[in-house]
Amino acid sequence: MTTETFIDLEADARVRADDRGHVFHSWSAQALIDPLPVAGGEGASFWDYRGNTYLDFSSQLVNLNLGHQHPDLVRAIQEQAGRLATIQPSMANDVRGQLAREIAAVAPDGMEKVFFTNGGADANENAVRMARIVTGKRKVLSMYRSYHGNTSTAITLTGDPRRWANEPADGSVAHFFGPYPYRSPFHAASPEQETARALEHLEQTIILEGASTIGAIILETVVGTNGVLVPPPGYLPGVRALCDKYGILYIADEVMVGFGRIGEWFAFQAFDVVPDLVTFAKGVNSGYVPLGGVLISDAVASHFDTVSFPGGLTYSGHPLACAAGVATFEVFRRDGILERVRDLGDRIVAPRLAAMAQRHPSVGDVRGRGLFWAIELVKDAETREPLVPFNAAGADAAPMTAVAAACKKAGLWPFTHFNRVHVAPPLVISEDDLIRGLDIIDRALDVADEAIA
Amino acid sequence: MTTETFIDLEADARVRADDRGHVFHSWSAQALIDPLPVAGGEGASFWDYRGNTYLDFSSQLVNLNLGHQHPDLVRAIQEQAGRLATIQPSMANDVRGQLAREIAAVAPDGMEKVFFTNGGADANENAVRMARIVTGKRKVLSMYRSYHGNTSTAITLTGDPRRWANEPADGSVAHFFGPYPYRSPFHAASPEQETARALEHLEQTIILEGASTIGAIILETVVGTNGVLVPPPGYLPGVRALCDKYGILYIADEVMVGFGRIGEWFAFQAFDVVPDLVTFAKGVNSGYVPLGGVLISDAVASHFDTVSFPGGLTYSGHPLACAAGVATFEVFRRDGILERVRDLGDRIVAPRLAAMAQRHPSVGDVRGRGLFWAIELVKDAETREPLVPFNAAGADAAPMTAVAAACKKAGLWPFTHFNRVHVAPPLVISEDDLIRGLDIIDRALDVADEAIA
Repeated sequence: MTTETFIDLEADARVRADDRGHVFHSWSAQALIDPLPVAGGEGASFWDYRGNTYLDFSSQLVNLNLGHQHPDLVRAIQEQAGRLATIQPSMANDVRGQLAREIAAVAPDGMEKVFFTNGGADANENAVRMARIVTGKRKVLSMYRSYHGNTSTAITLTGDPRRWANEPADGSVAHFFGPYPYRSPFHAASPEQETARALEHLEQTIILEGASTIGAIILETVVGTNGVLVPPPGYLPGVRALCDKYGILYIADEVMVGFGRIGEWFAFQAFDVVPDLVTFAKGVNSGYVPLGGVLISDAVASHFDTVSFPGGLTYSGHPLACAAGVATFEVFRRDGILERVRDLGDRIVAPRLAAMAQRHPSVGDVRGRGLFWAIELVKDAETREPLVPFNAAGADAAPMTAVAAACKKAGLWPFTHFNRVHVAPPLVISEDDLIRGLDIIDRALDVADEAIA
Repeated sequence: MTTETFIDLEADARVRADDRGHVFHSWSAQALIDPLPVAGGEGASFWDYRGNTYLDFSSQLVNLNLGHQHPDLVRAIQEQAGRLATIQPSMANDVRGQLAREIAAVAPDGMEKVFFTNGGADANENAVRMARIVTGKRKVLSMYRSYHGNTSTAITLTGDPRRWANEPADGSVAHFFGPYPYRSPFHAASPEQETARALEHLEQTIILEGASTIGAIILETVVGTNGVLVPPPGYLPGVRALCDKYGILYIADEVMVGFGRIGEWFAFQAFDVVPDLVTFAKGVNSGYVPLGGVLISDAVASHFDTVSFPGGLTYSGHPLACAAGVATFEVFRRDGILERVRDLGDRIVAPRLAAMAQRHPSVGDVRGRGLFWAIELVKDAETREPLVPFNAAGADAAPMTAVAAACKKAGLWPFTHFNRVHVAPPLVISEDDLIRGLDIIDRALDVADEAIA
């Protein structure tokens, strides 16, 4: 365990003043937030200026796969900054090419090229751009209960409330329901039935939206922020088959789950399916430098051999970002990160969450894979009524706020969303810290139990 | 002058092979390009692996305002990487707050808050988002001959051919004509008349599109890639007045011209106008780490005090990027960059380009400010027919390709677009290198003269 106790109240006040005076924050009412000044971090922990250290069970925004201040990533950035901090996208650059080669090497055969972007949103924008042009069909289907980014097409693809205030942004998007066994939109009684009915629903949606109008279907391989929804067996291969049947491209959004989160390079590799386009960001370099990208099937890439690709950006393939990505591959291989994630998920997280589900009446469901799990809290295990309403805020969200506060008070920084607590620590977390964190969540769930008692 | 002669043919082949095998490039037909492997850079120069050094008169993509490998920026990145490479946007962070404070300090009164993004495209997306929500009006007017980025709304705002293959992306955009004295869309005989008629055209466009539907007008303060179009006197204040008259917000896109390119922190400060929202990227940290943002008027920011802002991104206010931004402010102040740019522009560039215009029959117009200029090439000085057609490619663009090749052969990397050569070197270029580069362009223009002889 790596922690520091650090107190500097003057710095705390200064950082807070600059922030409150001048920083406009994402997804927030600016006068109603109180951002925590963070002084530093190491491994699975970070600390403030007031002597508090937190075990990071959110990996920040589920991006910090190799944890805070990983020495190999820090060194790679420092060396690359000293060598060549940046060069424009139209040049060839050693680390840019090397990272693209590394990514292609762990991808399925027939996916050789990578288009780099700044993050996940513009990765999805560009994947959709490719699909629309290659198919000549403009409409894109995406799931309810999804997040795909904040730029116009990406936020329209999004199937959660973050889309609402931005509509209509892209007029050529339609949403469908994905599988969600715990709250089946299809009244299914088993995972197999959920798969069959979800695919039937998707095919009906394709038929009614018009296959001749649909260029792509995009989905998070494992739905992330909206619930850690692991696809039931056969669902993703079924989506692939429908795409093939109707001449639609399959875009896998792996921004949150790629690069080790569930113990695979790409999450789709656990589900017996190969998409046409794969978007990534976050874990590719743990977000140490902004980076995203699109992994492109040869069939799609070759369309643009002689036709110009009408997209681009100043920082595409940024050397500093790519150097951190190359170092990520080295660490993953050297330290057996993928194997470690699968082992910790199976051996530590799964049984402990199962025990919590037994122990706490407020726990309706636990699900996940690798180091990516959700604990879904309910008012009543029979009715499955969520502990707080969908998209609750303020007083309506009080029971969840109380659970989060209990975690923080005990030294754990949780990832909570609606009526769920997610478990998404850095993939380098020690076994001791992982157990300690799960124990903290276990105790915090008493607060939820009390709320429904 | 800082150059190196560097030869490593093995590395050249390796970088080229990785690039051709795995990197998908911006705005290109992938099989028709031959990206130059770049080995290193320093100040105003960069070099390949084959012994060639180029004076960088493009500042890469007009982002490298402090040149290649500026020691202060490199050191700031290295130090920040060692301290805290990244932290999520919902936290307060010292360099994030410090950079926001620095930006607000050089902005007009009443612009205190900054929303950070990854680059210029998502800066424009978020500025438009703010304007639409604050005004409750969705339509945005933008100029023909403009570039605003590659994501859906940004590319729709764009008024150049890069938009074409992406339409329709955002259904609520309309384009108007801006001033362009050399090719007046308004048949004007003087800059004053150009201003008056351009404003009349804009007001007519507002009336016919419906002021009640228009939330924002966005324009590059000095149009960048599409021609270094410096607004004639009174134009921007006239736009401001129309915005005020019709309840429309004014968004200044300063992605290319902010942070010193024309010798001002923000280019609008040279034109007696204050926008409501200002977008920036590139020069804020020379692109050493991807960064963009929106500078927000207090009136717009306060709308989101109690209403949640429905936008955000994982890397908003990235510490590594912000540290390079803070260092940029230090260098600008210590080395008097703004004064230097104004001086070099007035004393060196302006008279030399004027002399070229006299000497070369192919030069139709020269225009610019600070270290941002265009040389517009024509077949005939009387008819002003462009040397190559609008959006020319392949054989149609041959005369411009030849001019660019002549520059490269002489050791200068030019920025060319359509029928223009732009002059946009790093702001730290030595006086000797600036003169040397202008002399290279001068000689390369002989090639254009021959083409029309």
